[in-house]
Amino acid sequence: MLFSKAEYKKRVQKTKESMQSRGIDVLLLTDPANMNYLTGFDAWSFYVHQLIIVTMDHDEPIWVGRGIDATAAQFTTWLKDENILSYPDHYVQSTKRHPMDFVANLLEKMNQDTKTIAAEFDAYYFTAKNYIQLTKNLPNARFVDGTSLVNWIRIVKSDEEIQLIKRAANIVTITMEHAIEQINAGVRQCDVVAEIYHKQISGTKAYGGDYTAIVPLLPTGEKTSACHLTWTDEVYKEGDPVILELAGCHQRYHSPLARTMVIGEPTDQLKELADVAVEGIEAALSMIKPGVTCEEVEFAWRTSIQKRGYEKESRIGYATGLNYPPDWGEHTASLRPGDKTVLQPNMVFHMIPGLWLDHIGMEISETFRVTETGVEVLANVERKLFIK
Amino acid sequence: MLFSKAEYKKRVQKTKESMQSRGIDVLLLTDPANMNYLTGFDAWSFYVHQLIIVTMDHDEPIWVGRGIDATAAQFTTWLKDENILSYPDHYVQSTKRHPMDFVANLLEKMNQDTKTIAAEFDAYYFTAKNYIQLTKNLPNARFVDGTSLVNWIRIVKSDEEIQLIKRAANIVTITMEHAIEQINAGVRQCDVVAEIYHKQISGTKAYGGDYTAIVPLLPTGEKTSACHLTWTDEVYKEGDPVILELAGCHQRYHSPLARTMVIGEPTDQLKELADVAVEGIEAALSMIKPGVTCEEVEFAWRTSIQKRGYEKESRIGYATGLNYPPDWGEHTASLRPGDKTVLQPNMVFHMIPGLWLDHIGMEISETFRVTETGVEVLANVERKLFIK
Repeated sequence: MLFSKAEYKKRVQKTKESMQSRGIDVLLLTDPANMNYLTGFDAWSFYVHQLIIVTMDHDEPIWVGRGIDATAAQFTTWLKDENILSYPDHYVQSTKRHPMDFVANLLEKMNQDTKTIAAEFDAYYFTAKNYIQLTKNLPNARFVDGTSLVNWIRIVKSDEEIQLIKRAANIVTITMEHAIEQINAGVRQCDVVAEIYHKQISGTKAYGGDYTAIVPLLPTGEKTSACHLTWTDEVYKEGDPVILELAGCHQRYHSPLARTMVIGEPTDQLKELADVAVEGIEAALSMIKPGVTCEEVEFAWRTSIQKRGYEKESRIGYATGLNYPPDWGEHTASLRPGDKTVLQPNMVFHMIPGLWLDHIGMEISETFRVTETGVEVLANVERKLFIK
Repeated sequence: MLFSKAEYKKRVQKTKESMQSRGIDVLLLTDPANMNYLTGFDAWSFYVHQLIIVTMDHDEPIWVGRGIDATAAQFTTWLKDENILSYPDHYVQSTKRHPMDFVANLLEKMNQDTKTIAAEFDAYYFTAKNYIQLTKNLPNARFVDGTSLVNWIRIVKSDEEIQLIKRAANIVTITMEHAIEQINAGVRQCDVVAEIYHKQISGTKAYGGDYTAIVPLLPTGEKTSACHLTWTDEVYKEGDPVILELAGCHQRYHSPLARTMVIGEPTDQLKELADVAVEGIEAALSMIKPGVTCEEVEFAWRTSIQKRGYEKESRIGYATGLNYPPDWGEHTASLRPGDKTVLQPNMVFHMIPGLWLDHIGMEISETFRVTETGVEVLANVERKLFIK
């Protein structure tokens, strides 16, 4: 186990306090990051239905999943064996039985079927069908939305968690530098990405890397205007701009980073975009300290780029840390207008103010920690447009 | 685009026929594989809400997603620009606005708000919140479950799709052989996985690899009894059994493969498990031809292992092909009792009859294509327990 049993119990305690303040008796968690955060559970089994149940009546959370995954729960969680429950295999992707029928039955046996039950209505892997089966099977329960309840507890990291994120930051530093070195005219995109994965996973001599919640994003040429494209097996050409958005990951903790480069001479437009982005990021970073709100950070960026005649609609960053595919974003605070979240020490954000024009895009980003007095940028890669 | 416009239109036509036969007017698809199958759309943007809308009244599907991802839809789909629609960024992970409010409003404008609307109730990324917002905003629509409607069209592959899967099979062959070579006492698990990723992504000289929908699964030692564990940065030890479950992926098409190895002398138990598995797989493979049902294939396996005193509860395989994280399984037919799906030429399955005992597990698998007269195993790695 990655953290002490006491640490996990403290997290469960905080969860119960948040449940109590909202009048929630039972909380169903399907977000793999939340399952991991409270129990340590770590396996690639979220492609079938699974969840943990936290109730005000039970000391420990209860893990429920597919039979063949219960062993993984025994290996990776601090839960007593009696709190690891599993449904038979004929519930898997069946049109006759649904795993939430099993869960509803279990809640009934646990005398929780007349309670206020919260589920993560908008979390990955909590499908409409989950909701339909639970509400149908438990007509006397009151269902409420518990989306992000645990995520908001995760937003302030412990010092131990920060250490894991710093390891991830070291991994992304090594990876980004290597990737920029590898990208040259005549090289296939897939061969560069193979090198990226190699660095991400082998990590350093002292610690290895984990899979990242988002795969390497490497739009090239005109496609730099489309930020979530992956790669092809085409070769890079002289003059190509390339965006690299990567993360390092260690024990499921992430430190994302984006840089933009060009093979050969950049256009004036690209150089200007880079200047605007770097100035804007530096203006925003200089604002960061405990007590400042997320929207104030965004406003500093906005003001900076407006002076250069630019504007940007989309948010410029989000909280990050522990996560599973498909997103390393934490789904709590965002750096955008209207977000009044107050920065606190040991919050971690990925500030990624991408600028996308019609035929070109620019991404330069930083992952930072809010310190007691200001900001700590975690990776260590020059903040500029890289020119080959 | 990977396929001709005519091919995509044929797929849309088949979808509409299936909709008509079920009385569905409007189909909302959030499964990224189904979105790709009908439109070509390919980007890592499924971490925010997005979907395609197929209606009986509209010729083309309509893509709806986040503003910054519309460019990716323009690059990767065959859709007219007018059929690529996007919601503003303040809908992203907001507690005030939900992307499905935007979709409901759109359906109203399209005069589809009193129709029978199907959504993929149990697909990844179709959350309970999606369902709640749509049904609340469209009280005059009738909502029905469209889970797997398109998946069942995907189950029989075109010859072009088979070619892509065969490329994926070549990639997994190379990758598996290299991985087995790399695993030795004293080597860190993460360094082996780095090599695995390198081979998976660089592919062959003729074509590159794509990210797989499931990351490499490599449980080691006692943990071989837990099938969905990933890797650590610990070193392999003399005597360790290691399960490798990997896929090759090319253009989002998969060919998965599992093998088990042991560093040093295998125990008698492990040798016996391997013999039982190989015999069982060969019995099941020998059954396969058009006209046979999925449960008949499983029964051949079951009969074979029963003779050796073994039994297994969980299914022994599933249809596979085009997919996105978190699963390369197609969620259609399974090789298990009760599944009466009749095999047809160009169906592709991953047969993975894992045997897990209390402290040890064994996985040997094959991905196969049903041919006109029998079966074609796609990868080319010796079917045995590998001994170092």
